[in-house]
Order: sequence, then C-alpha cells, then structure tokens
Amino acid sequence: MGANQTERDQRADRFADDPAFAVHEGGKLSVVPTRSIESIADLALTYTPGVARVSSAIAAEPELARRFTWAPRVVAVVSDGSAVLGLGNIGPAASLPVMEGKACLFAEFGGLSAVPIVLSTNDVDQIVETVVAIAPSFGGINLEDISAPRCFEIEARLRERLDIPVMHDDQHGTAIVVLAALRNAATVVGRELSDLRVVVSGAGAAGVACTKILLEAGIGDLSVADSQGILHAGRADLTPTKQWLVDNTNRTGYAGTMVDALRGADVYLGLSGGSVPESAIATMAPDCIVFSLANPIPEVDPVMAAKYAAVVATGRSDLPNQINNVLAFPGIFRGAIDAGAHSITEEMKLAAAVAIADVVGDEVRADYIVPSPLDRRVAAAVAEAVASCAREQGITV
Amino acid sequence: MGANQTERDQRADRFADDPAFAVHEGGKLSVVPTRSIESIADLALTYTPGVARVSSAIAAEPELARRFTWAPRVVAVVSDGSAVLGLGNIGPAASLPVMEGKACLFAEFGGLSAVPIVLSTNDVDQIVETVVAIAPSFGGINLEDISAPRCFEIEARLRERLDIPVMHDDQHGTAIVVLAALRNAATVVGRELSDLRVVVSGAGAAGVACTKILLEAGIGDLSVADSQGILHAGRADLTPTKQWLVDNTNRTGYAGTMVDALRGADVYLGLSGGSVPESAIATMAPDCIVFSLANPIPEVDPVMAAKYAAVVATGRSDLPNQINNVLAFPGIFRGAIDAGAHSITEEMKLAAAVAIADVVGDEVRADYIVPSPLDRRVAAAVAEAVASCAREQGITV
Repeated sequence: MGANQTERDQRADRFADDPAFAVHEGGKLSVVPTRSIESIADLALTYTPGVARVSSAIAAEPELARRFTWAPRVVAVVSDGSAVLGLGNIGPAASLPVMEGKACLFAEFGGLSAVPIVLSTNDVDQIVETVVAIAPSFGGINLEDISAPRCFEIEARLRERLDIPVMHDDQHGTAIVVLAALRNAATVVGRELSDLRVVVSGAGAAGVACTKILLEAGIGDLSVADSQGILHAGRADLTPTKQWLVDNTNRTGYAGTMVDALRGADVYLGLSGGSVPESAIATMAPDCIVFSLANPIPEVDPVMAAKYAAVVATGRSDLPNQINNVLAFPGIFRGAIDAGAHSITEEMKLAAAVAIADVVGDEVRADYIVPSPLDRRVAAAVAEAVASCAREQGITV
Repeated sequence: MGANQTERDQRADRFADDPAFAVHEGGKLSVVPTRSIESIADLALTYTPGVARVSSAIAAEPELARRFTWAPRVVAVVSDGSAVLGLGNIGPAASLPVMEGKACLFAEFGGLSAVPIVLSTNDVDQIVETVVAIAPSFGGINLEDISAPRCFEIEARLRERLDIPVMHDDQHGTAIVVLAALRNAATVVGRELSDLRVVVSGAGAAGVACTKILLEAGIGDLSVADSQGILHAGRADLTPTKQWLVDNTNRTGYAGTMVDALRGADVYLGLSGGSVPESAIATMAPDCIVFSLANPIPEVDPVMAAKYAAVVATGRSDLPNQINNVLAFPGIFRGAIDAGAHSITEEMKLAAAVAIADVVGDEVRADYIVPSPLDRRVAAAVAEAVASCAREQGITV
C-alpha cells in the first residue's frame, strides 16, 4: 500500500502542472439512474418483477420503446481512433478523452445522453457490422475522428443500413458551421454566396463535406486543393471521392497550385494544416475572406491575414470567429431525435447552418460572424430548425 | 400540435394504472458530465485543445487510460434479448428496460457506470466479434439474458479474447447468491455442505453455473434434471454441456424423474419453472431445504414447502430469503475493477459467495439466510473480498 501511494504521488506530480489532466482524472462522464432506489417497492418497479410488464408491452408494440426506454435519446460517439484531432492514428484508448469530451458537449448543449464507443478495429466491414449490431441501443450515431477515405464509405453504408440518424461530425459538423460563418461573412462584405470564388485547401473528410454543402448553398465557383495542387480532370491519382470533386468543382479546369489559385479568389478555406505564405494571401481579391481552421496552428497566420482580408476566422478558442463544431452537432442530433427523424438529410444540414447564422443576426460584424460556442441559444435554434425541416420532409416516425 | 397532445393523453391513460410505466417514462438512465462547462477555459480543457494533451499522453503510455478515461469504471450490460426474464426471446428493444434496470443497480450498489448494449443479432460469432470490437470502451462486460447453450460459448470465447472481466450474470450471479444462501441454510439446519444431497431442476444457464459452483464449494452429492428427467450417462440427447454435467454429477447413476430423485434429498434447487407436486416435497429428507427460484411463480408453492422444509427461499421480493442477483454482480464487478483484474475467476466467485453469506453472519435464521437486496453493506463486502482475492491470485494490472 505504501509503495502504491508513493507511486500515485509521483504520477500526480507528473501531471500537476497541466489543468487538462486534473479535468480528466477518473474520466469525464458518469451514467446515473434517473430515479433512485430507496425501497423494495422501487426495486420491484425499476427491476423485476415490474420491468417485465414494460418489456412485454414493448415486445407487443415496438414503438413504445421510444417512450419507455432511454435509447432514443442516446447518441453513440463512435471512433476507431484513426484520425484524432491533429494527432493521427492514436488508437481507441487514446481517443477516448476526445469522445468523452464530445459526450459532455452533447449533454451540456443538446440535453442528450451520449456514450463513447471506441473500436478495436480499423476494418470498414467490421466497423459497419459492429455499429449495426449495437444500433438498437441508441437513437443516433455520431461518427468521429475516422480517417478518410474510410469515413465516407462507413457513413454511407451505415446511413443505408440504419433507420436512425447517422452523421460523421468531422465532415458535416464542420461543413455546417463553415457555411453558417460564410453566410455571415458574405453579409459583412456585402456579397452574395453565388458571387464568391472559393479555394478549399484539403480534400479529406472536412474538405469534401464543406465543398458539398457550399455547392448546395449556391456558392459561385469553387476549387479544391490537396497536397498535389488543385484537383482537375488531368490528374492521374484520383480516388472516387476526388473524382467526384473534379466533376463538381473547378469549372474553369484550373490545373495549378493552391497558392496560384488564390490569385483573385474571394475566399480561402483552410482544412489541411501546413502554412500559406503572405505573398499568396496578398494576391486575393479585395475584401477577401480567410477561414484558416487548422488547430492549434492555422494555415494562415491570423494577424497577417487581417492585413488583407475583411473577415478572418480560425478554429482557435482564443481568437474571434471560432469555427467550432459544437455549434452544430448537439442541436442537429437533438432536432433529429425530437422529430424522430430516420436520417439527417442535406436539407436538415442547410437548415442548421441558417439557424446558426441567424443567432448572430443583425449584430453581425467582421469579428462576430458565428455565435460563441457557449451561446445556449444556438443548440435550441438548430434543434428547432432541424426538427421542423425533418417534419416537412416527412422522414419522421 | 393539438392532435399530438390528444394522442399523448390517450397513451398516458393506457399506462396510468401501472406505476412501473411511470418509472420507465423517458428511460431510467442518463449520461452526465462529471464537471460542467461554464467558460471558454472549461471548454478548452474538457475538449480541444486541452484534450489533445491527455490523448497524446495516453497514446505514449497506454496505462494512463486507467486514470484519465472513464472506460475502466464502465460496465457494458450486453444482451441480444433472447432469454429475457421469463419472457423468452423478445428481442433487443424490448429487453432494454431490463438492461437499463441492471445499469441502475450497478450505479446504486456498485458505484459503477453501466451502459446497456442490446444487439440486433443472435449469431454467436457476430456477438463475440461485436463485443471484442467495442471492448476498449469498457472496463467490464456483463452478459445478460442470452439463451443457453449460446451463452456458454459466447462467455467462454469472450473470456479468452478479452483482458477485462467478463461475466454472464444469469449463470454466475445466480450461482454465487445460491451458494451464499445454501451456506447459511446449512448452518440453520446444522449441516455441512459436503454432507448434503442436492437435486437441481433446470440445466440452462443458471442450472449449469449453480451446479459448478456447488461442486467447487464441496457439496456432497448432486444431480441435475432437465425436462426429460435426471441427467445420466444412458441419455441419448446430451449436448456438450449436459455431457459435462453427466460426467461430474449424479454419482450413483440415477436414471429416474426429478420427482423420484427428491425422495430423501436434502436440497431442492428449482431454476426451471413448472410446478413440483406436494407429494414429491413430502418425500424429501427431514429438515430439508427448498430454493424455488422461478419468478414470479416459484416451482414449489412456498407456503406448502414450509410444511416440510426447514428453510425456504424464492426469487420473490415479497417473501423472506429472496435470492436476488443484485447481491452479487455490483460488488463482483466493482471488486474486479478496483483491483484491475483481467478476469473473474472461480476463486473470486467463491469469495463473493462467502462475503454475501458473512453479511448475515451470526444473525442467520430460517427466514434470514441472505441479506436484503437493499443492504448497502453487501456490495462493499463483496467488492473487498473479490478485489483481495484477485490481488492474491496475481491477475491484476
């Protein structure tokens, strides 16, 4: 016991200087009963024999599960730990603090229970079969930090197989908040989305989803760069996803580098990491917009960007205009679940983006294009917009 | 809205007379953050960027997950809904209230978080692969209400594949409490376990596990009956499990019915349902012991049994001597988890049974052979005994 105590003291010392470790001591979540068990009568209602009557009722009428079980209000936060933040493939155990954090945000902002499910496999088939097998336990599936291109196939197959909302947040959460921010940034510079030329840096999960939602929102022209430059039809190395991007973006067939593409562009959307030189930003159009979302180090230094751009946004919590997924996912799942939606449609995502942008409303200005991640109005507004959209689409139970 | 309200009122009416439904409204569990998020600073510690430092530390030193994630203290309550209470194969959704109830008891008595995982498959291979895939999310696996004989193979394979505690509670939870009760019942009648002849009715999950633990505890003679009578070597219909029972029980090779086997027996252990006639109980030995655990209707009417037996126990909460698994599983998992045990061994189960029996201690009498399921001393005593046993066996982290 003495040795253990000493060992524990030493470990405590190692992490004492960083408050992040104190916050994580023992984990960040707890499962609690909604009612306490004080008496034999309580026990007989919560567990046997009373529970048998509830189970029998659900067996006879499956739709009663929506009312008498917790599952419809629980989101599984599923990851294989293969693309965790900027840390890469760190595996399931090391990814758990991120998934626990996500579950905390679901509770805090969405009023939903969420359970981290981290997986011991990176195999696409196994991930799909596992999630399908456990799906009756949950009311929604939030895929998280799964590397591209596997994330695209996993999400598509799960959406096909399951009749509950499934969303890969690294794709769509980011895309929804980017669209919300860009709507308000366009207002600040007095432009229409259809009038903007956008360069997206990064063709991973977030780059693909941002491109899709911006096209759906009617953006004027858009090209996407990966590490080899702008995607165009002449490239020999196109995956199916990149081929889709080629077919739907870069209408002038531009074949140069990302830096060259920035000349005269209205919007830079950085989702790739790395570093963009000042000389490139300097060539952008007047009143341009720079969203540089790599974390913790933005692709474009925000102070430098402000010399050229009318609006600058980053992923950082210590700067204005933080593009933070927490503005989207709690309200999206809450709205989909409230409506009993079978899936999350493109229309629901667009409605969420509008709702986020509208919380800022008339107060919009260059350093206030998105609400604070702590703004409690956001999730409520998103949930209402998403639920309303789902009901209009008739995809609810 | 008006129609929805009316519909809701009508549904409310249907279930208003049974308080079990009120207890289940909206489900019985909630996942809550252990610390609230009030500020941007909180957000930056619970989630990005602070969480990245914790994830990085765990990636470098995997054993830190035990300290800085919740997983080691979370039990998955896994079921395919194939053998739920006395209701049979009602499927995953209808089994959820039972699994939620179990999770409530883990929290209330074991101080552990537990998450119901109900499965959309009954296939043994798929269940094993699914649980292995999600195992990094949890510190223990409680298998529940999975039908025999699949439950034996599933448990055995998961014990082989995983290095966290795995226990099928319908087998071992019941067996542990039965052994605890029988130890004290033997004390009441002044007998040794080694001196008792036991007839077990039921060769399902609970029957097999009770038989094994009673043999390990040194019971004198024991035979097991299924619906075709006492298991013996001449039977042509033996599954591998029943063959094991034949090889290890019924040392006189008795080949008759369960009713006939009761003649002169010291203990009847009913785990099968059905009904045992008074004429059979009347033939048992003087000062006999009747444990009749079918729920809600015991195999032997307890009032009738009391005419012949010195000690009577049932599974019912409204009668003395309730054999309730809640006396075992919260403390067993808590002890195993506290010690960082890689598995739950036979020795740990025996230690748990002794600990349960010892809570009754000197107060033991015919109508008090097991503690109340609400007795908060039990889980603590079981946890301490199980953890201590695990440490002695050297199977801890």
